[in-house]
Amino acid sequence: MNAAHPDLAHSLRQLRERVLEANLALPRHGLVTFTWGNVSGYDPELELVAIKPSGVSYERMALADIVVLDLQGRVVEGELKPSSDTPTHLHLYRTWPQLRGIVHTHSTHATSWAQAGRAIPAMGTTHADYFHGEVPCTRALSREEVEGDYELNTGHVIVETVSALHDGNPLARPGILVAEHAPFAWGTSPDQAVHNAVVMEEVARMALYTHMLNPQRGPIEQHLLDKHYLRKHGKNAYYGQSKS
Amino acid sequence: MNAAHPDLAHSLRQLRERVLEANLALPRHGLVTFTWGNVSGYDPELELVAIKPSGVSYERMALADIVVLDLQGRVVEGELKPSSDTPTHLHLYRTWPQLRGIVHTHSTHATSWAQAGRAIPAMGTTHADYFHGEVPCTRALSREEVEGDYELNTGHVIVETVSALHDGNPLARPGILVAEHAPFAWGTSPDQAVHNAVVMEEVARMALYTHMLNPQRGPIEQHLLDKHYLRKHGKNAYYGQSKS
Amino acid sequence: MNAAHPDLAHSLRQLRERVLEANLALPRHGLVTFTWGNVSGYDPELELVAIKPSGVSYERMALADIVVLDLQGRVVEGELKPSSDTPTHLHLYRTWPQLRGIVHTHSTHATSWAQAGRAIPAMGTTHADYFHGEVPCTRALSREEVEGDYELNTGHVIVETVSALHDGNPLARPGILVAEHAPFAWGTSPDQAVHNAVVMEEVARMALYTHMLNPQRGPIEQHLLDKHYLRKHGKNAYYGQSKS
Amino acid sequence: MNAAHPDLAHSLRQLRERVLEANLALPRHGLVTFTWGNVSGYDPELELVAIKPSGVSYERMALADIVVLDLQGRVVEGELKPSSDTPTHLHLYRTWPQLRGIVHTHSTHATSWAQAGRAIPAMGTTHADYFHGEVPCTRALSREEVEGDYELNTGHVIVETVSALHDGNPLARPGILVAEHAPFAWGTSPDQAVHNAVVMEEVARMALYTHMLNPQRGPIEQHLLDKHYLRKHGKNAYYGQSKS
Repeated sequence: MNAAHPDLAHSLRQLRERVLEANLALPRHGLVTFTWGNVSGYDPELELVAIKPSGVSYERMALADIVVLDLQGRVVEGELKPSSDTPTHLHLYRTWPQLRGIVHTHSTHATSWAQAGRAIPAMGTTHADYFHGEVPCTRALSREEVEGDYELNTGHVIVETVSALHDGNPLARPGILVAEHAPFAWGTSPDQAVHNAVVMEEVARMALYTHMLNPQRGPIEQHLLDKHYLRKHGKNAYYGQSKS
Repeated sequence: MNAAHPDLAHSLRQLRERVLEANLALPRHGLVTFTWGNVSGYDPELELVAIKPSGVSYERMALADIVVLDLQGRVVEGELKPSSDTPTHLHLYRTWPQLRGIVHTHSTHATSWAQAGRAIPAMGTTHADYFHGEVPCTRALSREEVEGDYELNTGHVIVETVSALHDGNPLARPGILVAEHAPFAWGTSPDQAVHNAVVMEEVARMALYTHMLNPQRGPIEQHLLDKHYLRKHGKNAYYGQSKS
Repeated sequence: MNAAHPDLAHSLRQLRERVLEANLALPRHGLVTFTWGNVSGYDPELELVAIKPSGVSYERMALADIVVLDLQGRVVEGELKPSSDTPTHLHLYRTWPQLRGIVHTHSTHATSWAQAGRAIPAMGTTHADYFHGEVPCTRALSREEVEGDYELNTGHVIVETVSALHDGNPLARPGILVAEHAPFAWGTSPDQAVHNAVVMEEVARMALYTHMLNPQRGPIEQHLLDKHYLRKHGKNAYYGQSKS
Repeated sequence: MNAAHPDLAHSLRQLRERVLEANLALPRHGLVTFTWGNVSGYDPELELVAIKPSGVSYERMALADIVVLDLQGRVVEGELKPSSDTPTHLHLYRTWPQLRGIVHTHSTHATSWAQAGRAIPAMGTTHADYFHGEVPCTRALSREEVEGDYELNTGHVIVETVSALHDGNPLARPGILVAEHAPFAWGTSPDQAVHNAVVMEEVARMALYTHMLNPQRGPIEQHLLDKHYLRKHGKNAYYGQSKS
């Protein structure tokens, strides 16, 4: 990788711009309080990750504040310290290079499910339009995992949980709850990752209310789940404007 | 129908304008996240339906994006694909030509009742001012209905549910919950349909809280339901400014 | 009463201005959806009541729309029909001429308590700062009361409920829930009535959450209720800036 | 203390400006209705406290309205009466001079926990990032305490509750619930106190929802609590931009 090359410099700038823009979208969507939350983006050609700096307010965040690292966590560009959650993001990109954006927030309703230690069941078609099954919840980290390389271990437990799903495809469930902590979401771009984080929060809110109205209610049937997920994301998707 | 005729061209333009305006009202009323939701309008003289295009954001939606179809679903005007829910809308207009506007949203509280699979009881006069009885909830669609012509079958199950009500008059209950999915509302214009969708969401929210305060609470008495519904919608209505 | 007299004309104009301003404050405080809600004011020298017209939107409401009536309901000024709830307002002013403003809304949380048929217990000092005891809830109106002079009978049941309280002083409990319907609030001016309606809604919201956290929780002790109510409203009140 | 000295005059002005600014931040963060809430600041060199005046609206509050008192409650500057909660603030500063800002609000969710008489358990890392343990709830004040020097006694019961915690360090739990009343928060500046009040409200909201999803859920493990609290506040804190 030679970022001095004009094309690579352009790609790098674009990556940082997209990551800045996606971070600034978090408060607009009501997903963050103060500086809680961060978005990263990954460019597989550059093999670089851009991410929000640690503890910087969204009002003052500028392009120069976005930190660029390689997948091993070496800072390539930027004066500030990257988000303290960076090791989690890097582990997910190393494991699933098909991800191009990752979001971590403490959004109110998704965090409440994470605190309750419960997966969000697919209780309706809103959920099924984006998640091909429940939004899973990890196990709690052990004392050793917490006191050791905590943020990296958070990445490990996410990968462990997604890998145990029958499909094991992270893009078919573009989000997860880390038990006792909060949600992560991802997608094929930083912007799509934010989009999925917004959906997860809304789905978490509706699932809470559904639970209050009918605590016995379980997930919808597999055929309805498939229908909604696949009409948007399957080979024969017919939702939205076709690109052909 | 000859839309080339000046009067018809004027009517068609008016229909599209009203449908655009009603769609743009959805985010203003907090009823939609992203592109979730659509409004259509029906002109019985033109025998045409105008509807939101599929997956287009409200910020960028323009008059030219509104799609016009006949009742059999043939596109008459517009370059974009109509909403994927179009077959549901068309079936409702074919069955009940007195409808002139239909709205589909995933508004938070109404969707939560739909996910819970429960009708919204008429728990107070706010509800009774608009709905002459509970807001019904359809049965879940069968596997065959989901895997077959899904959106059309959604229309079938709505008609089946409303027809089973003692009055069977869709305008006396201008909304319904599709189980495991979300609400539809309608009215005598696209604007009135949006109005009824806003009411359904607020009524759903208050009914949730009422249920939390008093789970044994059932619907209000028939005489109070009649009084409120009929003082706004009956022959001797005395709410609002008389038109005479 | 001779409104042609310059002083009286001035008082009348002032009454209408205050009533208009108080009505326009309802949407600003998030208390109303569409046209649901109305504020009136009473001037005991003029012996006249000014009130919002029926079914007019807040966006378009102008001074000329405010209707003026005497206590028997005869329209003295204004071209529009007064609010359909006018007979309730007039009965309250006839019974308690110390009231100078009355508000009716369907605000979300207070209405949910009314629908649940439950008084709002004084669960904390926020409540006690404004209401010297629970916010009472009326009995449901009988079929005869509903089918008869409904809005007047709503006034009767409010007076019946307040009169049965140990103090029977409407200004010490400046609001009430009409069962299966919604709240009314009042005060020593239209503006104060709106203020009390805002407080009732917030108190209703916190009492709902308190109930969810601790369903066994009852009202606070009488000495704490007295302390907070009387430090703001008693003879030796010491909250706020003294007027001396 | 000689406030006529230029440096001291400058410090005093700065204290008042910070207190004004922190008070104006309360409505921006959605923590207050009307005038409910107040912020004070303490300057240990001046040995003076600046605090919001009683019952003045946030829209009209100006620098000249901020009242300055010594720790015994003698007014040093300002024409208005200080907040009726001033004796509580002063007692906390006298007991814990390391506090430099105190906030009292009736924010919706924290107040609901106070009304329920329940401490907010540390149910997740959002909580642990700011509070090194549960947010405690005081006992109810006795009749004698309420009818005596009420606001001072509120300070006493806060100190009693914090002192009984195993660490007894008020800055490690920068907030508390006063039973049947509402929250207080504090910090190393007026601004930090407001920050902690915002966090407490959000933590209270998520803990309510967590409780609804899983009533059996208790606090997180001590090692996770320590990890999150100490990575932000411990000697080896690594969250945010290092100051070195």
